[in-house]
Amino acid sequence: MRIGFIGLGRMGSGMAANLLKAHHEVTVYNRTPEKTAPLVRQGAKAAANIAAACHGDCVITMLANDEAVEEVVMQPGGVITSLAPQACHVSCSTISVAMSQRLADAHAKANQRFVAAPVFGRPDAAAEHHLFILAAGESSAVTSVMPLLDAMGQRTFTVSAKPQDANLIKLSGNFLIGCVMESLGEAMALIGKAGLDREAYLAMLTSTLFTAPVYKTYGSMIATDTFEPAGFAASLGFKDVRLALAAAEELQVSMPFASVLRDRFLALLAHGGGDLDWSAIGRGAADDAAIG
Amino acid sequence: MRIGFIGLGRMGSGMAANLLKAHHEVTVYNRTPEKTAPLVRQGAKAAANIAAACHGDCVITMLANDEAVEEVVMQPGGVITSLAPQACHVSCSTISVAMSQRLADAHAKANQRFVAAPVFGRPDAAAEHHLFILAAGESSAVTSVMPLLDAMGQRTFTVSAKPQDANLIKLSGNFLIGCVMESLGEAMALIGKAGLDREAYLAMLTSTLFTAPVYKTYGSMIATDTFEPAGFAASLGFKDVRLALAAAEELQVSMPFASVLRDRFLALLAHGGGDLDWSAIGRGAADDAAIG
Amino acid sequence: MRIGFIGLGRMGSGMAANLLKAHHEVTVYNRTPEKTAPLVRQGAKAAANIAAACHGDCVITMLANDEAVEEVVMQPGGVITSLAPQACHVSCSTISVAMSQRLADAHAKANQRFVAAPVFGRPDAAAEHHLFILAAGESSAVTSVMPLLDAMGQRTFTVSAKPQDANLIKLSGNFLIGCVMESLGEAMALIGKAGLDREAYLAMLTSTLFTAPVYKTYGSMIATDTFEPAGFAASLGFKDVRLALAAAEELQVSMPFASVLRDRFLALLAHGGGDLDWSAIGRGAADDAAIG
Amino acid sequence: MRIGFIGLGRMGSGMAANLLKAHHEVTVYNRTPEKTAPLVRQGAKAAANIAAACHGDCVITMLANDEAVEEVVMQPGGVITSLAPQACHVSCSTISVAMSQRLADAHAKANQRFVAAPVFGRPDAAAEHHLFILAAGESSAVTSVMPLLDAMGQRTFTVSAKPQDANLIKLSGNFLIGCVMESLGEAMALIGKAGLDREAYLAMLTSTLFTAPVYKTYGSMIATDTFEPAGFAASLGFKDVRLALAAAEELQVSMPFASVLRDRFLALLAHGGGDLDWSAIGRGAADDAAIG
Repeated sequence: MRIGFIGLGRMGSGMAANLLKAHHEVTVYNRTPEKTAPLVRQGAKAAANIAAACHGDCVITMLANDEAVEEVVMQPGGVITSLAPQACHVSCSTISVAMSQRLADAHAKANQRFVAAPVFGRPDAAAEHHLFILAAGESSAVTSVMPLLDAMGQRTFTVSAKPQDANLIKLSGNFLIGCVMESLGEAMALIGKAGLDREAYLAMLTSTLFTAPVYKTYGSMIATDTFEPAGFAASLGFKDVRLALAAAEELQVSMPFASVLRDRFLALLAHGGGDLDWSAIGRGAADDAAIG
Repeated sequence: MRIGFIGLGRMGSGMAANLLKAHHEVTVYNRTPEKTAPLVRQGAKAAANIAAACHGDCVITMLANDEAVEEVVMQPGGVITSLAPQACHVSCSTISVAMSQRLADAHAKANQRFVAAPVFGRPDAAAEHHLFILAAGESSAVTSVMPLLDAMGQRTFTVSAKPQDANLIKLSGNFLIGCVMESLGEAMALIGKAGLDREAYLAMLTSTLFTAPVYKTYGSMIATDTFEPAGFAASLGFKDVRLALAAAEELQVSMPFASVLRDRFLALLAHGGGDLDWSAIGRGAADDAAIG
Repeated sequence: MRIGFIGLGRMGSGMAANLLKAHHEVTVYNRTPEKTAPLVRQGAKAAANIAAACHGDCVITMLANDEAVEEVVMQPGGVITSLAPQACHVSCSTISVAMSQRLADAHAKANQRFVAAPVFGRPDAAAEHHLFILAAGESSAVTSVMPLLDAMGQRTFTVSAKPQDANLIKLSGNFLIGCVMESLGEAMALIGKAGLDREAYLAMLTSTLFTAPVYKTYGSMIATDTFEPAGFAASLGFKDVRLALAAAEELQVSMPFASVLRDRFLALLAHGGGDLDWSAIGRGAADDAAIG
Repeated sequence: MRIGFIGLGRMGSGMAANLLKAHHEVTVYNRTPEKTAPLVRQGAKAAANIAAACHGDCVITMLANDEAVEEVVMQPGGVITSLAPQACHVSCSTISVAMSQRLADAHAKANQRFVAAPVFGRPDAAAEHHLFILAAGESSAVTSVMPLLDAMGQRTFTVSAKPQDANLIKLSGNFLIGCVMESLGEAMALIGKAGLDREAYLAMLTSTLFTAPVYKTYGSMIATDTFEPAGFAASLGFKDVRLALAAAEELQVSMPFASVLRDRFLALLAHGGGDLDWSAIGRGAADDAAIG
């Protein structure tokens, strides 16, 4: 397929590279153009502007937040005005449910197709083809882009015919990861203040009841107070908790754990920790307990 | 080894049976004597009173709470006054850190040995030799009872020389399980109120990021609103959250997630749910959101 | 002064009437024009559209929320495009800090003056000239409209030169009232479930430590489970808590009490209570405790 | 009346002095005997031990916590074994509901009378006869000691025939005060981080909606970050929140605001603030927000 790829951050670069490996014809665009060079070396074409990346069957966007999507998609010269009728926009960004719905409406009005396909995984997973992808949209549209999704991730879950449902599920997943980090942070503050070794404790947990990789990955960062370099920045983690709470508010669902996470992130950001890995919220309980 | 076993509830019966299978000589005692019959058929002797179960090298107790331990161990005619010098008491009950320390002190004063060995696992795991055991106490004491622990569980973690540390870790583990249930409850209220299928959602979660069995076990109960029969009653789950909070208070550690769990349990108990499985707290978010 | 008044809800009608009593020349406008009749009988002129209410020295708006203000002020034919240079817009609505700042910027660009003047008080207080007013804006602008503020309220506090600060303080005040309601709700659930009389309890509280009228007013509604008719609807109270949390988020301040209030409102709204008085959140603790 | 008074801390000394001023015959006892001297100079007799303070019609105790009451009342040589039949024990201490019930039972068994009479007010209020007193117990017992209560406080509220109800109400009152402190702390963190003056803000609040003295007293301490000297120590405030939560737990009532207070106190104590005034919890929100 002839596809465009917009947004070559740490996630997007790995995803675009995997599309090239799968022999798709990929035209890449990034606001700061230097990021295109490594992909061009791997066979991509570089687009001079957004429109130039929208001339194929499909354009994939992987952007930081609602504001970036608004600018890239909705502005004049953006995706909406550049994409051909019946061509498909696949939005992999983690954005708000409301923005996803706005995109769906705008594409429908422009007689274009739209699939929301947010992903689970950090940059190394993106590079290594280990992402999990949540796809939602009209059945025929999802089917048409499935080869692209397969090229980017290890497995794709088709979750709904409404694109924004994929974004809701993605946000709920990041909420669940946040809960793992906070619960481990509290538990480690407790046993740590009693004088027990946090790494041995984590090893016991992850070899018994809590075998999921998220416990190992984030637990290790919390047990060793190692929050740099950031795989996923706290400022972005905060954004996702906010979006989960916003979606919950719209549905009139209260989520007290999410409120605790929100407060942890706010305290972390207020103390200058926005660039740390988001697992740094797991340090909050230790700080409150005046642990060294 | 010649051992006594006191407390033949659903957990204790399975554990004692496994000791018999490992060819230990086991004398069993239970407050309501009918429960001894199945074990006697498997080769155990029945003791007429607590003291009669304390004549061997070691006595194991598996009781419901601090009050039961107080009565069985500390009262005249109880374990302390019945056990021989240098014999060992292995306490597998999930009790408070403070009570475990009191037991340690009382046994030391009586020149007896004491090992705290709380377990992770539900009754079926006890029967099937799948328990995980956390052992703490003086090194020589733990070593001496290791064959018994091996006979009861699939793996034993020696966590500290201070018995009460095993109880603290056990309580922290139940707190972490509680967090899994509450976080799933909130996430499922969110996606459920948006009209998405909770079981499909859970299947996606447990085949991607949240592969640990606790997510499957409890998630399934929450996704299907099935809280009977109780593997572990809400009233007991509440007790453990209380004990975790009490231990945290003693150490001056605040645990906001634990406070949320406490409130969920209180609301559940107030509405008559004490006998439901403790995963019923995962229904709280749905109730608050008026989900049918 | 020749003034326009836009927004004749229960609050605005009382405020406009007091301006007439103070012998100001008042032109009133309301989206549903029937509401102008009583004020016309008191001496007001009725404007056919927003622009017609903007021909004097000053226009006062008293609207329900950000969206209404956006429509009335920012749209073509709205206040910004209708008001003369150097004329002043006094915004009494309880709106977001961000919207207040947008208004300030838009008026500055249009060479108009802007004063934020949100009020404390329910409709009866508005009618009886008992409002407290928080005024913020450039000193000369505030001074110029002070006679109008004096005509509408019993006392005006000039709080800052930045208009949005008045809105921030107003939102913080509604947050504090919400805390009174929730704290009373929890205390009454506690003593009520012990069998004590809630009204006698409230009488004791309000004649000793908690003599402020807010304790009497809202405490009485909570003690007697009387949430209709609504002096201030729960849906509006929820809006204000949201706006306080949004402002706090912008400033990176965590407010755990505000999060509890938010969850109470969400549960109340999910159960259909949006039209009840906002003190109905004080019923939440009793519901959780299964109090009849 | 011939009365004994046990517990001459900052509260008890003022209360005993007021009994002397009202011409009662007072025998005082304190664990550290130096504290009796000022009262002896005012006309009191000093007792050499607890029993010697229990020979009159009534003995009043004003002690720090459950443990002190346990020791003074329940031990051999304590109040129970020393008081004559039909004599009355008036317990003014802020203790747990459970302990108050234990005292009631023990006195009933010993054919003695018991009145719980906890007080609202700080040491200066005790000295100046400004306390509010909550009395509970059998009607005839309460009536018989009313002259003593009138001598110690400005007003007495008879709240129930069950002594422990007075303790429950007292604890609920301290909870409500704690909520005032936390809510002001959050509001001041919010407006303070926006650059507004906290003292001017407090002056506005306390001259409009929040006129109760508790807002002025504690608000001023929070606005100026002045938590020394302590009128009521944070360690004692924490005790009362714990006892309120314990009583609520017994009644299966969840109190999310109380949980927030508990966490604030734990963080304060962990950071060495136990001897500060309890209003120092109002500093927590500012610390989380990294306000200087």
